[in-house]
Amino acid sequence: VNLAALVEYDGTRFAGFQRQPAARGPTVQGALETAVARVAGEAVSVEAAGRTDSGVHASGQVVNFHVPPRHDVVTWQRALNALLPSDVAVAAVREVAGDFRARWSAVSRSYRYRILCRPVRAPLRERYVWRLPRSLDVAAMAAAAELLLGERDFGTFGSSPRDTRETRAAGVRRSTVRTMLAARVERSAEPAYETDEIVCELTANAFLTGMVRRLVGTLARVGEGRLSVDEFAARVAAADVALAAPTAPACGLCLVRVGYPPGTVVW
Amino acid sequence: VNLAALVEYDGTRFAGFQRQPAARGPTVQGALETAVARVAGEAVSVEAAGRTDSGVHASGQVVNFHVPPRHDVVTWQRALNALLPSDVAVAAVREVAGDFRARWSAVSRSYRYRILCRPVRAPLRERYVWRLPRSLDVAAMAAAAELLLGERDFGTFGSSPRDTRETRAAGVRRSTVRTMLAARVERSAEPAYETDEIVCELTANAFLTGMVRRLVGTLARVGEGRLSVDEFAARVAAADVALAAPTAPACGLCLVRVGYPPGTVVW
Repeated sequence: VNLAALVEYDGTRFAGFQRQPAARGPTVQGALETAVARVAGEAVSVEAAGRTDSGVHASGQVVNFHVPPRHDVVTWQRALNALLPSDVAVAAVREVAGDFRARWSAVSRSYRYRILCRPVRAPLRERYVWRLPRSLDVAAMAAAAELLLGERDFGTFGSSPRDTRETRAAGVRRSTVRTMLAARVERSAEPAYETDEIVCELTANAFLTGMVRRLVGTLARVGEGRLSVDEFAARVAAADVALAAPTAPACGLCLVRVGYPPGTVVW
Repeated sequence: VNLAALVEYDGTRFAGFQRQPAARGPTVQGALETAVARVAGEAVSVEAAGRTDSGVHASGQVVNFHVPPRHDVVTWQRALNALLPSDVAVAAVREVAGDFRARWSAVSRSYRYRILCRPVRAPLRERYVWRLPRSLDVAAMAAAAELLLGERDFGTFGSSPRDTRETRAAGVRRSTVRTMLAARVERSAEPAYETDEIVCELTANAFLTGMVRRLVGTLARVGEGRLSVDEFAARVAAADVALAAPTAPACGLCLVRVGYPPGTVVW
């Protein structure tokens, strides 16, 4: 049977989602495949909707894997949570159609990026925010974010994850056109954080490699007043990755939701 | 000069605020006194408004200490943050009147307790919540909390921190009368958490030892339907510590604010 799982993790300790040579450190995929293999009694490969970078968190990652029809989904969920390390959890397991693929069936991904504006470190939030010493112009950032909506070439903010060493060597450039479905920048809705924390929420059909963090890095330049909204628009239009601001750090980023066509998988 | 500091910490790693024999583990007071002594060039004792238990966090702890008049408050703040471990931070330093005492000058303390209702562990919140497997009746808990308001004997929920082995041996019982200034139980204001997270906010002139955690433990019984609001009221009225429910875990608790008389210290 083909099982889909809703997965949460604190990415701090992991060298990203995707399996890596062991020397690079533990990965979420490695942790999941080890647990799934123990329950299934055989090696199983686990595919994720979003291959999050090292240090990126997830509250709504989706994965799928094919296993023998031995246990029900409740048993699967319990067994996986018992076997997984404490910084990874399976929030739900569902049986899905045989052709469902967490990555290729997904129609949208939503990411949330938290920016904390204050000069002093924040021990209770430091794991989950990008801290900047000064306050940012939230209205300008929101106006810039709105310009991202719709289908466009996001080449300024990354390359296609389908680009490989081989395609690059062959001079092939995969499409960097994506559709931004929602792009909001606003103060935190949490009353204790509303004075100093800014949240960027981005939903697209798919994201380029490094896209959210380059976008947030560039939006922060707008918030700092170092880039006007018009200049931001011009950089977006140029579709040239050299024009992005430095990548925002991984720890502020969280994959919060993956959307699928109606009827595919319901949590 | 007498300096007051606003202090934040992640309590996970600490054996509480108060200095302990080294074998019990690091303390926040120990970390602060080490840093203050290095800047002051002499041993200095640091007093806190709330002596939080092992594992309890703070976003608004207040401390004070007397030091030679060598540096300004900005220098003090920078130096302390450079010397303190990453899970403690000084958010502000102010010069205060010579007779100001973080503990004895305080007129109120506010604590926040987060309860997460879900059967599966939550890697991104586990450090900061008490997780219970089932949902709780928030309205019943809020009604019970409201009964706590005003001046009353809170003996059901703890003993006076002024009780010592000596006073107890002598049969002296310090007062357990305190004034509850605010007591609210509500769903989290954070949209991503509103379905499963409950926040208890309690403000009193002062709290008994263990009081917040016994109160939250007993309020959770009300939320579970194991104790009616009337039974809760009867237990409060009895002022008997044997009637409290088990203490809620430390990790859900955070000291968020300490109040002082107008003009004493402003952050």
